[in-house]
Amino acid sequence: MYLFGEKVKDPVDHPIIRPSVNSVAVTYDVANDPKCEDLATAKSHLTGEKINRFTHVHQNTRDLVKKVKLLRLLGQKTGVCFQRCVGMDSLNALSIVTFEMDRKLGTKYYERFVEYLKHVQENDLVCCGAMTDPKGDRSLRPSQQADPDLYLRIIEQRHDGIVVRGSKVHQTGAVNSHEIIVMPTRTMRREDKDYAVSFAIPSDTEGLIYIYGRQSCDLRKTEDADIDLGNARYSGQEAMIIFDEVFVPWERVFMAGEYEFSWPLVNRFSAYHRQSYGGCKAGVGDVLIGAAAAIAEYNGVGKASHIRNKIVEMNHLNETIYACGIACSAEGHKTLSGTCLVNILLSNICKLNVTRFPFEIVRLAEDIAGGLLVTLPSEKDFKNPEIGKYMSKYLKGDKEVPTESRLRMLRLIENISMGLGAIGYQIESMHGAGSPQAQKIMIEREVNIEWKKRLAELLAGIGKEKQNDSKVF
Amino acid sequence: MYLFGEKVKDPVDHPIIRPSVNSVAVTYDVANDPKCEDLATAKSHLTGEKINRFTHVHQNTRDLVKKVKLLRLLGQKTGVCFQRCVGMDSLNALSIVTFEMDRKLGTKYYERFVEYLKHVQENDLVCCGAMTDPKGDRSLRPSQQADPDLYLRIIEQRHDGIVVRGSKVHQTGAVNSHEIIVMPTRTMRREDKDYAVSFAIPSDTEGLIYIYGRQSCDLRKTEDADIDLGNARYSGQEAMIIFDEVFVPWERVFMAGEYEFSWPLVNRFSAYHRQSYGGCKAGVGDVLIGAAAAIAEYNGVGKASHIRNKIVEMNHLNETIYACGIACSAEGHKTLSGTCLVNILLSNICKLNVTRFPFEIVRLAEDIAGGLLVTLPSEKDFKNPEIGKYMSKYLKGDKEVPTESRLRMLRLIENISMGLGAIGYQIESMHGAGSPQAQKIMIEREVNIEWKKRLAELLAGIGKEKQNDSKVF
Amino acid sequence: MYLFGEKVKDPVDHPIIRPSVNSVAVTYDVANDPKCEDLATAKSHLTGEKINRFTHVHQNTRDLVKKVKLLRLLGQKTGVCFQRCVGMDSLNALSIVTFEMDRKLGTKYYERFVEYLKHVQENDLVCCGAMTDPKGDRSLRPSQQADPDLYLRIIEQRHDGIVVRGSKVHQTGAVNSHEIIVMPTRTMRREDKDYAVSFAIPSDTEGLIYIYGRQSCDLRKTEDADIDLGNARYSGQEAMIIFDEVFVPWERVFMAGEYEFSWPLVNRFSAYHRQSYGGCKAGVGDVLIGAAAAIAEYNGVGKASHIRNKIVEMNHLNETIYACGIACSAEGHKTLSGTCLVNILLSNICKLNVTRFPFEIVRLAEDIAGGLLVTLPSEKDFKNPEIGKYMSKYLKGDKEVPTESRLRMLRLIENISMGLGAIGYQIESMHGAGSPQAQKIMIEREVNIEWKKRLAELLAGIGKEKQNDSKVF
Amino acid sequence: MYLFGEKVKDPVDHPIIRPSVNSVAVTYDVANDPKCEDLATAKSHLTGEKINRFTHVHQNTRDLVKKVKLLRLLGQKTGVCFQRCVGMDSLNALSIVTFEMDRKLGTKYYERFVEYLKHVQENDLVCCGAMTDPKGDRSLRPSQQADPDLYLRIIEQRHDGIVVRGSKVHQTGAVNSHEIIVMPTRTMRREDKDYAVSFAIPSDTEGLIYIYGRQSCDLRKTEDADIDLGNARYSGQEAMIIFDEVFVPWERVFMAGEYEFSWPLVNRFSAYHRQSYGGCKAGVGDVLIGAAAAIAEYNGVGKASHIRNKIVEMNHLNETIYACGIACSAEGHKTLSGTCLVNILLSNICKLNVTRFPFEIVRLAEDIAGGLLVTLPSEKDFKNPEIGKYMSKYLKGDKEVPTESRLRMLRLIENISMGLGAIGYQIESMHGAGSPQAQKIMIEREVNIEWKKRLAELLAGIGKEKQNDSKVF
Repeated sequence: MYLFGEKVKDPVDHPIIRPSVNSVAVTYDVANDPKCEDLATAKSHLTGEKINRFTHVHQNTRDLVKKVKLLRLLGQKTGVCFQRCVGMDSLNALSIVTFEMDRKLGTKYYERFVEYLKHVQENDLVCCGAMTDPKGDRSLRPSQQADPDLYLRIIEQRHDGIVVRGSKVHQTGAVNSHEIIVMPTRTMRREDKDYAVSFAIPSDTEGLIYIYGRQSCDLRKTEDADIDLGNARYSGQEAMIIFDEVFVPWERVFMAGEYEFSWPLVNRFSAYHRQSYGGCKAGVGDVLIGAAAAIAEYNGVGKASHIRNKIVEMNHLNETIYACGIACSAEGHKTLSGTCLVNILLSNICKLNVTRFPFEIVRLAEDIAGGLLVTLPSEKDFKNPEIGKYMSKYLKGDKEVPTESRLRMLRLIENISMGLGAIGYQIESMHGAGSPQAQKIMIEREVNIEWKKRLAELLAGIGKEKQNDSKVF
Repeated sequence: MYLFGEKVKDPVDHPIIRPSVNSVAVTYDVANDPKCEDLATAKSHLTGEKINRFTHVHQNTRDLVKKVKLLRLLGQKTGVCFQRCVGMDSLNALSIVTFEMDRKLGTKYYERFVEYLKHVQENDLVCCGAMTDPKGDRSLRPSQQADPDLYLRIIEQRHDGIVVRGSKVHQTGAVNSHEIIVMPTRTMRREDKDYAVSFAIPSDTEGLIYIYGRQSCDLRKTEDADIDLGNARYSGQEAMIIFDEVFVPWERVFMAGEYEFSWPLVNRFSAYHRQSYGGCKAGVGDVLIGAAAAIAEYNGVGKASHIRNKIVEMNHLNETIYACGIACSAEGHKTLSGTCLVNILLSNICKLNVTRFPFEIVRLAEDIAGGLLVTLPSEKDFKNPEIGKYMSKYLKGDKEVPTESRLRMLRLIENISMGLGAIGYQIESMHGAGSPQAQKIMIEREVNIEWKKRLAELLAGIGKEKQNDSKVF
Repeated sequence: MYLFGEKVKDPVDHPIIRPSVNSVAVTYDVANDPKCEDLATAKSHLTGEKINRFTHVHQNTRDLVKKVKLLRLLGQKTGVCFQRCVGMDSLNALSIVTFEMDRKLGTKYYERFVEYLKHVQENDLVCCGAMTDPKGDRSLRPSQQADPDLYLRIIEQRHDGIVVRGSKVHQTGAVNSHEIIVMPTRTMRREDKDYAVSFAIPSDTEGLIYIYGRQSCDLRKTEDADIDLGNARYSGQEAMIIFDEVFVPWERVFMAGEYEFSWPLVNRFSAYHRQSYGGCKAGVGDVLIGAAAAIAEYNGVGKASHIRNKIVEMNHLNETIYACGIACSAEGHKTLSGTCLVNILLSNICKLNVTRFPFEIVRLAEDIAGGLLVTLPSEKDFKNPEIGKYMSKYLKGDKEVPTESRLRMLRLIENISMGLGAIGYQIESMHGAGSPQAQKIMIEREVNIEWKKRLAELLAGIGKEKQNDSKVF
Repeated sequence: MYLFGEKVKDPVDHPIIRPSVNSVAVTYDVANDPKCEDLATAKSHLTGEKINRFTHVHQNTRDLVKKVKLLRLLGQKTGVCFQRCVGMDSLNALSIVTFEMDRKLGTKYYERFVEYLKHVQENDLVCCGAMTDPKGDRSLRPSQQADPDLYLRIIEQRHDGIVVRGSKVHQTGAVNSHEIIVMPTRTMRREDKDYAVSFAIPSDTEGLIYIYGRQSCDLRKTEDADIDLGNARYSGQEAMIIFDEVFVPWERVFMAGEYEFSWPLVNRFSAYHRQSYGGCKAGVGDVLIGAAAAIAEYNGVGKASHIRNKIVEMNHLNETIYACGIACSAEGHKTLSGTCLVNILLSNICKLNVTRFPFEIVRLAEDIAGGLLVTLPSEKDFKNPEIGKYMSKYLKGDKEVPTESRLRMLRLIENISMGLGAIGYQIESMHGAGSPQAQKIMIEREVNIEWKKRLAELLAGIGKEKQNDSKVF
């Protein structure tokens, strides 16, 4: 694992990495908290044991709804990306698609997958769901790229397994994961067969190299800062993973050339992951709304009508995201595999809203916070005996509120609006689970536009009324 | 009943009124259509009989979800307001509040109400839910108005019933209803006691006067037009009702002075009615989206990327509305009365989106339709032998599509964007079930902002961590 | 001239048409009003005489700015489209392009045009600028259409002139014009040569047929209504014109086959006309903002903070439109012909904002107006002795304001938001001077994106710094 | 001067500060560049000498327009805030208000000011315009604060000058300035007399303490980074200034207790400064638009229709800002002092758009950039011999573009969207020259709403037509 050009020996205690470990840890904490247990744990349909919901395969729409509520709760508790839903969403998508492959092709992938799932559940593992390839020139297909490795591919099939080469980028939580679950990133055609590959391997498998992604304001974590971090305890994590000729034994291979199942896997994974954002981003939104309401109070303007109006708007946008997360869950359905899938149209609607509303919520928070958000001197100045007193004196807002609280709250808002938290709350909201254009394409596909035209024609008196035009949702 | 300054003898066959009757009729048709039966009917929890869902009191969240789907279906079938949900929402709100009144005050309202509900269910009645008073000067309370009748009030309590005077305005479907269910329109204080009144009466009760509201393009219905109406079969209906000293027998009185229950009734009714719009407006949205997609094709630009992008956006906005309708339903809960209530926060979120998105959907439809939408000569010109040929020739779009179809589709879009349909799809979306500011006030009330501040403070390191800060949604 | 399937003998006194005549009349009135003279008149650069600005060819940027201010003033005075700018914009565009044609091709068009312009100025004529062809299947070029007449074309060249056939649609003010100035509607190629035609003819030339466009709520004008019209005195006008083999003498022909000058003419005309909307629509916006502020007061909520906030927003959007109109004028430049042309990029920016902001201004006005906007009974009811008293009593708002004033103001808002005024304020804002996609294409063309990339590369340290990278606006 | 808790000896070469010095330097470079001279210099109305425009007092609307164009040019060249307009705006505002004070009060401030202005022009000084006080509890006036120093005030008047105490916060470019020009920050009443104070002092005056504001990603400047900075050469600068009993001689005092001129000064300064943003932010917008277009190309999707559509939208928003800047300049007017003032309404419109559009431009840039924007490993990784090759291989986009260029462009976008550049482009856009609510209040004041109501009433037929209702803009 590399970071800032150096190999990191002990990632867990590295000041840049540690806060991201803390965030993942909360996914374990809530499972042990009786108040959260109902959301944070589930009963395994395989073993009947109580398991962490992050390792669960959804059995019904209640499970889907609980997932969204769990993610909102964790967003509220951490204020960042806690990195564990990608794995959960991978497991659920694979449970459906391996089943369908076996049904259609007579393969044995589902059986393998179920064994793997038990392993994950029993050991309560964190899985990294690795889908996105580097993609090179985006106007070309995998097999057309100048460099054939720009999408991860099988370079050798052996009796005991496969050897792969390539890379997966934007890998949230990769360094904090026990397992890496690889999936293809797009529709594949026959000529892209070698790129249709899915498997799971331990994250310390030979040949894996991690390069840690740098983030806005990451160096503050090396400053021995507390106030200036805004959110000192938690952060997210992104890395690119290099697969430098990695061997995968057959029992961990879930797709190897069945290119026609590449799109179904992408499609299901994306649907689940677009649902996820209806939970976690609403949770981070709650934190930012709370921070905006708090700083308004500290500034002495908590009751101004224009401030209250902005906070209502922030809540409105945030709850709209959440409502879409709930709706695509409540409207889910059980697939033949037994796994319950979200409503794909509505989960895309959810995500497309997530590519918009957090940005407006941030803008409103920045409006409420005031210019001090970016002109505030450092924590070190505040703690300096000579000049700290001036900061204490002159940066005081409401006289009941310590200046330090005001500084802390501004730094939290800075964190989410342009610092470490902005990665998760804004750019991940935009591109995680697919960029907005991907959602637009799915919405176009999922909507029955021919039928809507027919509705209009019937009312406009065009064409003969067909016998069977009632559609029931 | 008055219309255009004249008393109308036969409303049903009046050309202005008839299309609004047709819309209500569809609420009966779907109940008899096996394809729609599951949505359009329910089993009465009182009698066990199969009843029209519009007379049903929701027993669980599935009922709430089905309501939304039924309303979307009817919006799709009629393209207008079919006027029957206000009554349904009144019945559900009264079922909760009469129960609560009895529990707290020892009254017998719930019993009365249940008898009334049976009557409605057995006879499959259309009820008009009459809440909105004229309100006069909005900065004054009911009892402060220059004219005490500007809110409907009890002017006499008799041994056999009460006598009321006042008016209810914006009464959707009033002239098409069997029953008028009156409710107070706002919080009342002790001094407004006489205004805290709820009851049900047949719509032909003595002393009731209806004045029919005029609508954009209403006179086209008197022209013997077909094409120019856009939606020739269906329309909505609004009226103001004058209560000119109307007597109501006690067995139909559900509130008479219990002012502290005025707000709970308004609140529950509004919550249900704000949910409704997540269904019906999405249904009308479907029609308009279909119309936009059709006219684009007729114009020969159905595949242009900017057109497709706009149609995706229309669908996105429309499904967001629907998702909020589903979410507030799926997150409903059973009240002590046994009636299932929607999630109040989310139903307000739903409605606030409805005050925005249909306007943008209309704007996009108008963009796609082109200027002909408002420069098109009349149907009479088109049918005139001398000049009709010029219109046929010059207004031809795609050569496979008859010019008449293009005219019809444009008139349908005109109908929804600025004609008869715009009343329901736009202004009702804005003000029905309360204007946007009412939703903002409710959102402010329903959101736990103190707790969100606490979330922010915990992450920012402000204050001590309290023992019990996990909240589970 | 046909209207509702009948030939109209006396258009001027026809109740449907009359208000549109009144609007044009105001363009004469202001020229005689000493307070408006500076805006409404100009000194002819040809004759030195004082002329109506609508017949003027802009000599400098002050002229361009005054044009915008004049149009705003007229929008304020009429609340509708006063129909005379299209002609002014045609004259200005032709003054540039005929000059350029002569310079390049050695033709004599400019000379002819100047003679014509003198005629227009001396007689203070209203000109209809006729650009938009029916276009048929929009994915096909003029010469590819199934029917070759779907774009207006020369069908015969004679010694004394040309004969044309075709139609021009969406012709604002056509029936109120003295002259029809025809221009091509798009880029033409060699094969579309016959479609590259421009000329001017008196509006009563043989072979011209007008079919009057119907408008939302047009029939109210036949009702003997006053209140219900909202804006009883003024309205706009649209018509389609049929050119049924019309002869044009050479002295009035300004283009006949010079296809390579079709786009320059369209481009200049569009630029001027997109500027126009920065004036007139801001003027109508002023009326609607005033109406919203007035109805808020009549309702007793004029001082509520959410109302004031909405009115500020309406003003903000309206002034942004105006600012763009001013900017593209102030940044105009003199062409070789001596005519001053607007800044083309900024006039497209202006118009693209006009396709958006009036819709939001309307939505806010509808929000402020309240539901009564569409549930109000008719003027006939109000004047009916039996029920008018109920309306008077129950529709009273602020006690100092007569109920009739409230009705009148609501009807004015209805007029602009969905009635007769909505044609001009909304759909014309969308499609007049070209639909939004046309502006987007122009913005893409006019912006120097290569140079912006270079700015970014310089700062990012990509490539060598070129010697000459300063660009001055 | 303090930074990170330490006194800085040599600010100019401090790695955190140096890039902000570079930005100011460009304001001198352009004055010496013959291509920019017309914008960057002016002829002093006092001395007739050629001076840097930043020291000029606007003599006509051409000067105002050139100012906007100069600022756009500098925004394009630096991509950040170049810090020198605040001083220019202060000088212009003072030139008007000192003149008005003298006229009304018989004081000699204008004379003093003119002497000072000559000094600034002759020495081509950078001035920091210091207006914003810390403000403490914003619901209280200056004299009501718990600590009387929370607004800067005169604590002693002496025969030779005044002594002041307090602080000015958010001081853009303070450390890079030769002079500090202090102005009051709001309307003052008689009881706030001591707070109505304006003066100019050299930035190294005794008693001045600067505490440097920290910024998002500031530490990258200490890393010896080049690529990772995005914009390695330029940055902005913010500081808080402490006035620890500072003496100001009378010849540099421009207001000392004349509280009724506090608002006129704030109002004029704000108007000029809100105009400024119509230039500089459009310039930075150009850089970001260019960066988005470039990265789209590097990614191989430069021609995708959805990308082109987004870039058009970015340009549209950016040019709207610029148009407002131009409009408020072109509509400026000469005051009695001889200084030309912008149109106040339109400059507030300009700024209110600046609080919105850059945020959407950023959102679109982030959309186009892709997720790599925040998952990219560091420059040190890229330059590391072991893993740099993987980054080179796998982060390659279009095969003609070096991977390093892609990294550089992404870092530039990161800089403007959430790094060092975001301070100037986003938060300064929001709060600089006053927060959005301040603009809304000014728009409400500047708009003649009574007259707009009258326009509506005239058209609606309410009240008698008054003789004199034409207003000419």
